Amino acid sequence: MNKTVFVLNGPNLNMLGKREPGIYGGNTLKDVENECVAAGAALGLTVDFRQSNHEGVLIDWLHEASEKAIGVAINAGAYTHTSIALHDAIKAISVPVIEVHISNVHAREHFRHHSAIAPAAKGVICGFGIQSYVLALNALNSLSA
Amino acid sequence: MNKTVFVLNGPNLNMLGKREPGIYGGNTLKDVENECVAAGAALGLTVDFRQSNHEGVLIDWLHEASEKAIGVAINAGAYTHTSIALHDAIKAISVPVIEVHISNVHAREHFRHHSAIAPAAKGVICGFGIQSYVLALNALNSLSA
Amino acid sequence: MNKTVFVLNGPNLNMLGKREPGIYGGNTLKDVENECVAAGAALGLTVDFRQSNHEGVLIDWLHEASEKAIGVAINAGAYTHTSIALHDAIKAISVPVIEVHISNVHAREHFRHHSAIAPAAKGVICGFGIQSYVLALNALNSLSA
Amino acid sequence: MNKTVFVLNGPNLNMLGKREPGIYGGNTLKDVENECVAAGAALGLTVDFRQSNHEGVLIDWLHEASEKAIGVAINAGAYTHTSIALHDAIKAISVPVIEVHISNVHAREHFRHHSAIAPAAKGVICGFGIQSYVLALNALNSLSA
Amino acid sequence: MNKTVFVLNGPNLNMLGKREPGIYGGNTLKDVENECVAAGAALGLTVDFRQSNHEGVLIDWLHEASEKAIGVAINAGAYTHTSIALHDAIKAISVPVIEVHISNVHAREHFRHHSAIAPAAKGVICGFGIQSYVLALNALNSLSA
Amino acid sequence: MNKTVFVLNGPNLNMLGKREPGIYGGNTLKDVENECVAAGAALGLTVDFRQSNHEGVLIDWLHEASEKAIGVAINAGAYTHTSIALHDAIKAISVPVIEVHISNVHAREHFRHHSAIAPAAKGVICGFGIQSYVLALNALNSLSA
Amino acid sequence: MNKTVFVLNGPNLNMLGKREPGIYGGNTLKDVENECVAAGAALGLTVDFRQSNHEGVLIDWLHEASEKAIGVAINAGAYTHTSIALHDAIKAISVPVIEVHISNVHAREHFRHHSAIAPAAKGVICGFGIQSYVLALNALNSLSA
Amino acid sequence: MNKTVFVLNGPNLNMLGKREPGIYGGNTLKDVENECVAAGAALGLTVDFRQSNHEGVLIDWLHEASEKAIGVAINAGAYTHTSIALHDAIKAISVPVIEVHISNVHAREHFRHHSAIAPAAKGVICGFGIQSYVLALNALNSLSA
Amino acid sequence: MNKTVFVLNGPNLNMLGKREPGIYGGNTLKDVENECVAAGAALGLTVDFRQSNHEGVLIDWLHEASEKAIGVAINAGAYTHTSIALHDAIKAISVPVIEVHISNVHAREHFRHHSAIAPAAKGVICGFGIQSYVLALNALNSLSA
Amino acid sequence: MNKTVFVLNGPNLNMLGKREPGIYGGNTLKDVENECVAAGAALGLTVDFRQSNHEGVLIDWLHEASEKAIGVAINAGAYTHTSIALHDAIKAISVPVIEVHISNVHAREHFRHHSAIAPAAKGVICGFGIQSYVLALNALNSLSA
Amino acid sequence: MNKTVFVLNGPNLNMLGKREPGIYGGNTLKDVENECVAAGAALGLTVDFRQSNHEGVLIDWLHEASEKAIGVAINAGAYTHTSIALHDAIKAISVPVIEVHISNVHAREHFRHHSAIAPAAKGVICGFGIQSYVLALNALNSLSA
Amino acid sequence: MNKTVFVLNGPNLNMLGKREPGIYGGNTLKDVENECVAAGAALGLTVDFRQSNHEGVLIDWLHEASEKAIGVAINAGAYTHTSIALHDAIKAISVPVIEVHISNVHAREHFRHHSAIAPAAKGVICGFGIQSYVLALNALNSLSA
Repeated sequence: MNKTVFVLNGPNLNMLGKREPGIYGGNTLKDVENECVAAGAALGLTVDFRQSNHEGVLIDWLHEASEKAIGVAINAGAYTHTSIALHDAIKAISVPVIEVHISNVHAREHFRHHSAIAPAAKGVICGFGIQSYVLALNALNSLSA
Repeated sequence: MNKTVFVLNGPNLNMLGKREPGIYGGNTLKDVENECVAAGAALGLTVDFRQSNHEGVLIDWLHEASEKAIGVAINAGAYTHTSIALHDAIKAISVPVIEVHISNVHAREHFRHHSAIAPAAKGVICGFGIQSYVLALNALNSLSA
Repeated sequence: MNKTVFVLNGPNLNMLGKREPGIYGGNTLKDVENECVAAGAALGLTVDFRQSNHEGVLIDWLHEASEKAIGVAINAGAYTHTSIALHDAIKAISVPVIEVHISNVHAREHFRHHSAIAPAAKGVICGFGIQSYVLALNALNSLSA
Repeated sequence: MNKTVFVLNGPNLNMLGKREPGIYGGNTLKDVENECVAAGAALGLTVDFRQSNHEGVLIDWLHEASEKAIGVAINAGAYTHTSIALHDAIKAISVPVIEVHISNVHAREHFRHHSAIAPAAKGVICGFGIQSYVLALNALNSLSA
Repeated sequence: MNKTVFVLNGPNLNMLGKREPGIYGGNTLKDVENECVAAGAALGLTVDFRQSNHEGVLIDWLHEASEKAIGVAINAGAYTHTSIALHDAIKAISVPVIEVHISNVHAREHFRHHSAIAPAAKGVICGFGIQSYVLALNALNSLSA
Repeated sequence: MNKTVFVLNGPNLNMLGKREPGIYGGNTLKDVENECVAAGAALGLTVDFRQSNHEGVLIDWLHEASEKAIGVAINAGAYTHTSIALHDAIKAISVPVIEVHISNVHAREHFRHHSAIAPAAKGVICGFGIQSYVLALNALNSLSA
Repeated sequence: MNKTVFVLNGPNLNMLGKREPGIYGGNTLKDVENECVAAGAALGLTVDFRQSNHEGVLIDWLHEASEKAIGVAINAGAYTHTSIALHDAIKAISVPVIEVHISNVHAREHFRHHSAIAPAAKGVICGFGIQSYVLALNALNSLSA
Repeated sequence: MNKTVFVLNGPNLNMLGKREPGIYGGNTLKDVENECVAAGAALGLTVDFRQSNHEGVLIDWLHEASEKAIGVAINAGAYTHTSIALHDAIKAISVPVIEVHISNVHAREHFRHHSAIAPAAKGVICGFGIQSYVLALNALNSLSA
Repeated sequence: MNKTVFVLNGPNLNMLGKREPGIYGGNTLKDVENECVAAGAALGLTVDFRQSNHEGVLIDWLHEASEKAIGVAINAGAYTHTSIALHDAIKAISVPVIEVHISNVHAREHFRHHSAIAPAAKGVICGFGIQSYVLALNALNSLSA
Repeated sequence: MNKTVFVLNGPNLNMLGKREPGIYGGNTLKDVENECVAAGAALGLTVDFRQSNHEGVLIDWLHEASEKAIGVAINAGAYTHTSIALHDAIKAISVPVIEVHISNVHAREHFRHHSAIAPAAKGVICGFGIQSYVLALNALNSLSA
Repeated sequence: MNKTVFVLNGPNLNMLGKREPGIYGGNTLKDVENECVAAGAALGLTVDFRQSNHEGVLIDWLHEASEKAIGVAINAGAYTHTSIALHDAIKAISVPVIEVHISNVHAREHFRHHSAIAPAAKGVICGFGIQSYVLALNALNSLSA
Repeated sequence: MNKTVFVLNGPNLNMLGKREPGIYGGNTLKDVENECVAAGAALGLTVDFRQSNHEGVLIDWLHEASEKAIGVAINAGAYTHTSIALHDAIKAISVPVIEVHISNVHAREHFRHHSAIAPAAKGVICGFGIQSYVLALNALNSLSA
């Protein structure tokens, strides 16, 4: 039976592909989901893919993941840079969490260089477009081997 | 047919008129809504007036505005100073967004001097009481002419 | 008839007792609630005990407290350090609000040393485990005497 | 008889329309003046429109305004960001002063995000091109009503 | 036989009640002492109540407490914000030390928001007037139970 | 024959006595001049008393003082806090210059605590109302003895 | 009968005249005392002149001054730059306190540019050698007139 | 024929496996090399694996890579945080460069949170032990596809 | 016919040669002018050499240069470090502007290390005494070739 | 006859050996004194060994040392990091003073990395346990040779 | 016989002309060398032109220059901004050293605005492309005249 | 048989005695070596004395020391203040390393007050000229006893 991983997406990622393709590429979040589900299947993983603009919902899902998943890939969007509450939520669960970004946040505005959640995460992958998500699934698979 | 504008209000603005009239005046948020609806009507604008204490709900509404409105006036309350997620939401939509404040935030506590959302907004109007909202409606009307 | 106080708990406190007992002790949030209800009863107070991971919900509850309670004890978790909106919500109501923490936040990471809400609160009690809550109930009782 | 307002312009605004139209638009300062005079007339206001590159001259004019005008709209150019003396001059007079900018200064270089004069001003309007001036005249008219 | 606690007061607290009642209330330090002795007696505690304007004397007393008392409540006054030596003194003894303040220091000048001694203390109680001391005695009693 | 001293006044001091008497008192700048002339006469000093809102004019006058006066008392107003050019002008002349303020600038806004010119001055006198000027004349007299 | 003023001197001022005459001049503290007593006598003031290296003793003396003197001139030496406790002591008494320095502290090391006590003082006089003390006595005399 | 990638290692990485296994794991750099060569072979990549403690040598190798390789994975060790020269070297070549770290640098000392080279890199992978290198090889392979 | 260049000098440079020869050398500003005129003539340049202590006048001259000169060498004195208005003036004109300093500003006080105008200038030359001006004329000549 | 050196110890060092042996070792201050006296005797030095928790007493002793000793070794404890007054005291005397620490202060909390007194001292020795004192005695002996 | 000057080039300058011609121009380092040799010959100077990516090699060469050359022009590349060791090396030799840059470093990223070596250099020339080197040779020639 | 210690010297120390004797004294590095060898012999230590201007070489030698020596004394020169790589190298080896300086770095420029390597070292000795090295050899001898 397949193992489950959560792939969580934060604020504004539902707009993916509709604006600023120079930064985020032309894919929609649905494309990302399809890619993740396919890549997960090849690794024997069931991908539970979700998006919310609400900080509290993301916290709820992280808690839920500790019961239902073997790991989490999270693209927390702008909450990455401000949310100590997400930091604490990651610390409060024992399954590994990987921080993911589509763009290279370090090459963008200064206020995107600091991550409030990275210190609590297992690792960080950024800058490879959709491929960032696929690399994270590979990493989660290795960690659970 | 009238064009629609969203007038969005953030955290604690539902308490308007009930506390600290020295800063915010004696009007309630209902008074502000009435004033906006009337002023909008005079300009040929239908005003969709909303309030929420939830950061995520405000983001949802900004996304919704990109489908239904020709522009947005937003008084983001305290989220003005901390929310990169609202900054990104404004960037993610193509209708113009104007930042509005009842009081002159620059004359208050230091932590209210910085706006996280102004760089993504079309412009800022603050310090004129309810009149700040009316001026914003005028500006949105000019922008859509 | 008993007077009512709200005891509000913020993000991740629902995980209490499940992780990091070295910092937070082995009690669950249900244990805290039981202790508060008992201590409140002894003082003639009805304790309305709630938890949410959502910043907006905590703001809603603070507004509600201004109608239904004689005071509030709030452990805002990680929102303590970032939420100007909670600061404003406390300022917007007239019943006294006490900031409470289980652990001594000053002895932990640097980003937990600053409280955005303390300047708006009546007082602060931290570092005594569940006893922090009981002391806060005592203080609210004295304030309403 | 018409009421008089001063519209004061600071350093380098005499170069308007000659350089950097991407930021400031193609209008010259003469165009701005014409627009202001016309919009003022429609509101029953006589607009006294001036420009100087000298900080001291702007201070002199603010003092003069306290005798001759019912309000001031000032685009202080780069002095906006450095001049405590202009801040004091605004504080020293009792007629309302509105800070105006053609561009959205918050979306430009970091050193343009801080305003030394906004804390002393009645309000701020920025980001609407020439329309910023017209909105300020509307605001001054409301304030003197 | 009663257990002994030290209640130590730092610089300028001997002036209590004589100046700035708006901040510190109208009680004198003698009133505080009487209240502490009474509340202590009710808990079975002997309160040894002292005041000094000298940083070195407070350090001496903390060392002395490690021999004679089961705990310390200290209102270190302005030394709270600057004294690493008091921080070290608290760390050097094994009985629990609670930081106490009459006023809510977080709502006062910026330089009173930082505590140099809180990281070494067991916990902090501030903002409840004389009641802050009484709550601290309760907390010390619980800790020694 | 009397010795000459310059008493120079910077931006907005021409408004003295017309606004904010709570900070600056009710005297006009003419009153200050009369007091200085009288106090100077008693010391055998001819007081050349001037005011300008222009930073460049104040620099010109400092240069002129090096030819015509035995010392300078300068109340540079808001330029005190920003003008490195005035700092250099004081360094460029050999007669002693004393920085004077009517109010205690250290007890006002934070941006008035730093003086750019004090390091180049002979000394500083602030906080005594008009008396600050008189004390400065006494000091200049002692220095030239 | 003469009125009494306290002239208080802080750490290391007992070494005056013995070291670093380039900064502090060749006078000893006894010379300063003689000069102060003589100048005080001429003004009808009895000068109570003291020195201590102990921060706590200086606080004690300020409290004592509130009973026995009409004003205080204090050269707090290095405590000037670090002591919030002295700041509070000055605030706790109602007689005027003037901060005095022999040298122009603004022209020395950076850590001597900030005064922790000036915001609580009536005024500041620095840079005139012993004459700084005499000017302070003149100022205290004017204040008590 | 296989494509070549450079895997470059900076200061102290030759000590891998000999010290601090809690942070870096028990593998030696030879183990890392073997893993990389094997993983590269599976992807059709020839891995040229090198280590140096010299900043200049790392720069030379980056230049060399622009002639001989289709991409670079670099673990710059402590030079990551200080070397603008490596930043420039990465910018000076056109093949993609990926920053790699064995440990999660964001969870370590503060001075390891800032990367001087990340803004010039294509992306960053950290926190997965040796797997960080393998993920980087995958990413380079995708980029050259 | 010769091409014209402006050589502009800011505050206090009229005092050159009269004070602080250890830093600025013994030449007067007239000597600098003669040297510039001669060096300009050898290059086929007419040098228009000016000085003012007024920030506004320097801005006026930069605007004038855009009509009459092929380039500008400016020694803005202390305004170099504070004037965003001069920065904007340089940006507002299209002829090249070179920042010149007689002394090596990087080897002087910290507040002279930052140049507000260098980012808008074509280049910077400092530290060679009068020769700095001559090197700037050579550079302007090369730029206009 | 033997030469005398002062070995001065600051706040909390009287607690040595009683707490935190992981940092300070198991020796008491009496052990340190015995070691110093013995090592001093071997070098022909009489060691005058003292401890106080009072900053003012340490200043008094430094002044006394200028009369009675050929040098001073001082472990100022926590005052090391905050006391400008001790800095001035060391500057005020002409015998050499060496700063000594038992632990390596650079490897502890950030606020222990800065020494306010080191710039005034002859040199610094830290990190060698009691041996730090012995090395300081050797150094003082060399300096007085 | 000709006098010798060293022209030293730091990290990445061997890549000149191969990348980023928008910033550095299309010339290679060989072109720069040829230009320098020719310009040197015209001035009677033998140019010893070198490049290294190694900080230590540049230090070695500066030491060597003190024996063999009358002056040095150094373009230290990115080491300019970080190397205190190069600063010390320049201070350790007595021949004049001129800091040279092809581009206007002040108009580029913030971290290129600070030069660690300029305070030790004789002067700085930047922003003129290859011409920066030629101007430096002229300056060295003047200095040795 | 003698035990071996490494004495490592960083950039520019090969110039010792040739320049700036006011700071470093008149001894050459050869003199330091002779003194160290002699002092080492007296303690039964073989001193392996080396110098390099290359950061990488110093790292190599520290690694080598972990095989061949019982301890290291290192004067890292300017790399002391910038090199995190040396910090890591010291952490990577298990023999004790002592940081040594000839001059009192705390009494020199601000950028020499911070040591990047001290937190990783066993201890620090600075300010005693060559004697600093001899004291370090004594300390290493004690540590290996």
